[in-house]
Amino acid sequence: MPALPFTKEEYRARLTKVRARMAERGLHGLIVTDIPNQHYLTGYDGWSFYTPQIVAVPLEDGEPYWIGRAMDAVGGRLTAHMPPEYVVGFPEDHVHRPDIHPMDWIADYLKGLGWDGKRIGYESDSFYFSPRAFACLEQGMPNAEFVDADLLVNWIRSVKSEAELAYMRMAAELVGTVQTRAREVIRPGVRQCDAIGEIYKVQMSGHPDIGGDITSLCPLIMAGESASAPHVMWSEETFEDGQTCALEFAAAVRHYNAGLARTVHLGNPPDALMETAKAVEEGLEAVLHMMKAGVTGGEVEAAWREVISRYGLEKESRIGYGIGLGYPPDWGERTISLRAGEATVLEPDNTVHVMLGMWMDGWGMEMSETVRVTDTGNECLTNFPRGVHVID
Amino acid sequence: MPALPFTKEEYRARLTKVRARMAERGLHGLIVTDIPNQHYLTGYDGWSFYTPQIVAVPLEDGEPYWIGRAMDAVGGRLTAHMPPEYVVGFPEDHVHRPDIHPMDWIADYLKGLGWDGKRIGYESDSFYFSPRAFACLEQGMPNAEFVDADLLVNWIRSVKSEAELAYMRMAAELVGTVQTRAREVIRPGVRQCDAIGEIYKVQMSGHPDIGGDITSLCPLIMAGESASAPHVMWSEETFEDGQTCALEFAAAVRHYNAGLARTVHLGNPPDALMETAKAVEEGLEAVLHMMKAGVTGGEVEAAWREVISRYGLEKESRIGYGIGLGYPPDWGERTISLRAGEATVLEPDNTVHVMLGMWMDGWGMEMSETVRVTDTGNECLTNFPRGVHVID
Repeated sequence: MPALPFTKEEYRARLTKVRARMAERGLHGLIVTDIPNQHYLTGYDGWSFYTPQIVAVPLEDGEPYWIGRAMDAVGGRLTAHMPPEYVVGFPEDHVHRPDIHPMDWIADYLKGLGWDGKRIGYESDSFYFSPRAFACLEQGMPNAEFVDADLLVNWIRSVKSEAELAYMRMAAELVGTVQTRAREVIRPGVRQCDAIGEIYKVQMSGHPDIGGDITSLCPLIMAGESASAPHVMWSEETFEDGQTCALEFAAAVRHYNAGLARTVHLGNPPDALMETAKAVEEGLEAVLHMMKAGVTGGEVEAAWREVISRYGLEKESRIGYGIGLGYPPDWGERTISLRAGEATVLEPDNTVHVMLGMWMDGWGMEMSETVRVTDTGNECLTNFPRGVHVID
Repeated sequence: MPALPFTKEEYRARLTKVRARMAERGLHGLIVTDIPNQHYLTGYDGWSFYTPQIVAVPLEDGEPYWIGRAMDAVGGRLTAHMPPEYVVGFPEDHVHRPDIHPMDWIADYLKGLGWDGKRIGYESDSFYFSPRAFACLEQGMPNAEFVDADLLVNWIRSVKSEAELAYMRMAAELVGTVQTRAREVIRPGVRQCDAIGEIYKVQMSGHPDIGGDITSLCPLIMAGESASAPHVMWSEETFEDGQTCALEFAAAVRHYNAGLARTVHLGNPPDALMETAKAVEEGLEAVLHMMKAGVTGGEVEAAWREVISRYGLEKESRIGYGIGLGYPPDWGERTISLRAGEATVLEPDNTVHVMLGMWMDGWGMEMSETVRVTDTGNECLTNFPRGVHVID
């Protein structure tokens, strides 16, 4: 097995921060249901989150508990930093049953830890934690007071350590290689699915020192009409002369994602595309000029809006969000947003995907960067030519 | 855009079946939160499910509604079979906010359709439907009676149409090609991540006529000690002489998955592996001999158990489950299970992943097939040599 991605001290520091926030909120325990948060606190790594899985953090000192399916507890002991007794499996006969649910068993286990009757935080809005699962917890611990602690861990991990930034820099370098490969393989007559295959190959091969991981969003190639929408899947259709293609990719190293979107055009690019790209690139420069610690998400967006409105353009959706550690389906952290009126203040070592997607009438284009916020400005982690790339 | 994967008539037939079950249960409306179920009923296809997204099926005749993020409604109009007015976007400013939630808006929209005060089914245990999202629905429609209708649609789609089986046959053919490629690239000294890259490339390139889709589980290569656990991720470690590697792959065509697991050994295989593989292969034959319409999941598992116990082996976890249409994170349908005591009766045109994973002490092996149940027996959709493959 590969070594833990972080030192034991780094995991301890993360737990200390989480416990400080728990104490502020009067929580005796925290039920972590978000999969990236679970990995952040324990190092556990496995494609096991299609059955219920939690990490339980007691307020008092000591290790967190990973609780998931019995067969995956073996992988838990191979990958998590805690001693084996903190990796707990619910019985296999609880999987996909109408009458009993793994969370019944987990509630019982937490009761055994003395959590019933206590004030317990839980993450109310994470992927892979269902209303039925929550109802089982409530029924199984009727004397607990459940308090919504959604994003408590997410906000802590929105500020990256040096070790996390090292992985993000590798991912940022790798995603440039992915964009380069896309420019080599996208040609009229090539099937979209074949280009996607080449892209996955580069994503997975990764860095010479560290392999690539699955990215939290799949690679997105939006060609022609599909580029009028942001998240349409690829198909076996061929690229055609005259198409504008928005290419939104990430690369991931130790599950840290860096995003990078660019646009290519097959053949002679239309004026509307080049004009829009000029506005977007100028808008991106305005964003990067504005981004630094202490500035709000709303102030950053206003700088963008000022530029594109001069070009007669508008964009309803947000222009950026926190990015970093992720498993499917989202590399976004659900923390920072860059959008009109957003009061959240940027902090040093936030990492943000500045994502400028212009989904127009029957066509579209994208340009993005993964950016680290610093005290005095920012560091663009991704480094790739910005203009529309023409494929002749 | 590619054509709809199924005829308008097939979508109508699916809706008719769903409405018959809704009527039996006295439901005036059904809120579909499971992403494969949404695709099954509407054809909608996009990587958009990291923000809330539902399909609303009224009991009375007419089209279902797709309701998701505004930017993704454009993709909804490109991919779903309904007229554009049935594709509805919630406002962009509702994304990832602590104070308001997209489900507040969706509840309001359903209220506008007259759903408040009615008896409404919902899917309580799907991956991308959170406790907070459900609380918003309940608060926004205080006069509705919410009834758990989890798996209502899943059980309908557990029986495949001819058109669905055609996609599954293509996926089954493709996953054989994927296993063949793995046998070509896995060699001592090759990094796991590079093998995974080659596997993705074959998965995506797909069939000559139809491209490959993302599979619901990522490809799993479990080498050496990692094979003692079922779902550990790959790394940049190299394959080594003496390792047993469990290779669990799928291929997907129009989001229909076929699974196929096999085991390879690098170098001279140990007796324990070959003995276990012999037991598993004999157990698989017993399973296939038993599987047909009218037999229970428990009877199938008993046939397996009888064989492997003769070899002194046991397996705690289930040996199969419904497979078919899926998005990440699971190709399982959460319907049929083949396990001790399971009373569910197999039906014609169920498709089942018979998954025989033996996770031993410090090593492991897997063998699986994707199988269609028939009236008189079954059809093994996957077709690939079963024995342990030795890589010299």
